[in-house]
Amino acid sequence: MKKVKKNPVIAIAGATGLVGSEMLNVLEQRKVPCSELKLLASKDSVGEVYKFNEQEVEVEALSAESFDGVDIALFATSAELSSIHVPAAVSAGAVCIDNSSYFRMKPEVPLVVPEVNFDAIKDGDMIIANPNCSTIQLVPVLDVIHKIAGLRHVVVSTYQSVSGAGKAALDELWGQTLAVFNQQEVPQEAFQHQIAFNCIPQIDVFLDNGFTKEEFKIINESRKILGIADLRITATAVRVPVFFSHAESVFVETEKPFDLSDIIKRLSKAPGIAVRAAHDEYPMQLEAASTDEIHVGRLRRDESVENGLSMWVVADNVRKGAALNAVQIAERLIAG
Amino acid sequence: MKKVKKNPVIAIAGATGLVGSEMLNVLEQRKVPCSELKLLASKDSVGEVYKFNEQEVEVEALSAESFDGVDIALFATSAELSSIHVPAAVSAGAVCIDNSSYFRMKPEVPLVVPEVNFDAIKDGDMIIANPNCSTIQLVPVLDVIHKIAGLRHVVVSTYQSVSGAGKAALDELWGQTLAVFNQQEVPQEAFQHQIAFNCIPQIDVFLDNGFTKEEFKIINESRKILGIADLRITATAVRVPVFFSHAESVFVETEKPFDLSDIIKRLSKAPGIAVRAAHDEYPMQLEAASTDEIHVGRLRRDESVENGLSMWVVADNVRKGAALNAVQIAERLIAG
Repeated sequence: MKKVKKNPVIAIAGATGLVGSEMLNVLEQRKVPCSELKLLASKDSVGEVYKFNEQEVEVEALSAESFDGVDIALFATSAELSSIHVPAAVSAGAVCIDNSSYFRMKPEVPLVVPEVNFDAIKDGDMIIANPNCSTIQLVPVLDVIHKIAGLRHVVVSTYQSVSGAGKAALDELWGQTLAVFNQQEVPQEAFQHQIAFNCIPQIDVFLDNGFTKEEFKIINESRKILGIADLRITATAVRVPVFFSHAESVFVETEKPFDLSDIIKRLSKAPGIAVRAAHDEYPMQLEAASTDEIHVGRLRRDESVENGLSMWVVADNVRKGAALNAVQIAERLIAG
Repeated sequence: MKKVKKNPVIAIAGATGLVGSEMLNVLEQRKVPCSELKLLASKDSVGEVYKFNEQEVEVEALSAESFDGVDIALFATSAELSSIHVPAAVSAGAVCIDNSSYFRMKPEVPLVVPEVNFDAIKDGDMIIANPNCSTIQLVPVLDVIHKIAGLRHVVVSTYQSVSGAGKAALDELWGQTLAVFNQQEVPQEAFQHQIAFNCIPQIDVFLDNGFTKEEFKIINESRKILGIADLRITATAVRVPVFFSHAESVFVETEKPFDLSDIIKRLSKAPGIAVRAAHDEYPMQLEAASTDEIHVGRLRRDESVENGLSMWVVADNVRKGAALNAVQIAERLIAG
């Protein structure tokens, strides 16, 4: 990768959204070295002021000229905006860490969860893709199990919070719930159907094969990050009426026999993973919100196959699932 | 089974609970032949009056003497109460259809979903067990697929509404949601943790193997109803903040190749099953509430195994998952 300065100029593009503003929080909380921070967003937000390290930073308009002098650009923008502005930032000399889906599956772009495949970043790489939130929390867990016993088959069903769909979606769950209470008409914009007191088995649009794009992100991105091109993995992605954090019910069949206590031990020692080994002390979305870890619980031997394992995986989708993962990549680039 | 009169005396034990009162509704809506209806409940409810077929019926205390002259007794009571009162009803000559878990796995008691295994009821059977709600909506779907291509492996993750835990649980979701809105302390009794804006990966208590009883009900009851003692099936049961209906993400691997359109056609023709074949017209809990059907959507070929199928199954857990299924058994006993 490009050598990054020890005290870089960092820009956040899309700084006023849920993920962008969390990137700002995470940069400050983790005391990431930063000589100057630039906050970039659409014209509507220009002039808004955010606090960073005791200083006030004014939001500037995201444009082709935004990246002059920037060393690291964190993108929390849509695929469309990233497709335009990431190349501009690269031309200006910035290493870009992009949270959109636009570059993720391009063979020349590393797709990185630092705990798993930071070494996928090679000298000269100027674009690094941040995976989908549901993928980020899954892959470090699968990686540990794969190294112990080999992954033979993975079946994932997700319980994804509305924050994955941005600020408007948080407002919609809140507003719809209130409307149900007041027996008023339920307003609906952010989702295809009412999400208050309901689960929606659709995230993103449908592909011809009947899967959603979200489900194929989990499938394809997991394969790329783990470096197992033919990994047998399937997913059903479901939106649930929860504000923050995604949960996943994960079934794994391994190639080789394993010792459950060994898997628990190795997961517990893995960076970024917190294991709840006692059956009744499972993690939940409500508690995982605002934490950095990937929380794994309900770990149990699954007798439905010869070498089976079932579990429940929870993480803050805005934090580890997006902002934190991007900042962790930046930190390691800076550390060299 | 015992011959049942064409115009029987029917009793509902536990008539004032969620399932019991739904049994009353279903008996009336389906015009089930009934010369007299007896409503039985705990002392607290004695004297309450319910309407049935334009007549007023007063709740009586459930006791050893309640079943004199009763031909069919529908039990919507706890396992503990059923263990005491079902034998008393049998002694009084009533055929008992019991919704509790108490008799379900006893080898001599048929466990019945009428669409699948009504013929499990033999001459002389006086106790018929009604399966667990999450099992009832799953098994008719699995049965169709098994007959077409053979079940090799089934992985289920549930999204279960709070109504499965009774009236107090409905109040708790409602009250907790209101408390969150008003930034008050969140009251908590019915569930282990806050359910408002949260998912709880625990239903019923834990077994030593790390599964919950609910999960093993799905596993064991499905095997018994389908008559496949060694069916390879696993489940993760999760409570979600939804009032009515359970949803299930179901992955199936079959023994033989299948034609997806054939499965869709056969499921569509199966009694009690409603298929949404268009990918984006999936069923949801909000709409399935108060309907009789098992709704199947998101049916798609799953390439993670050679013969794979994924889908989303939704039904009203109080209705098809409990009250309706019991009444359907009674109807067929009466029809002889």
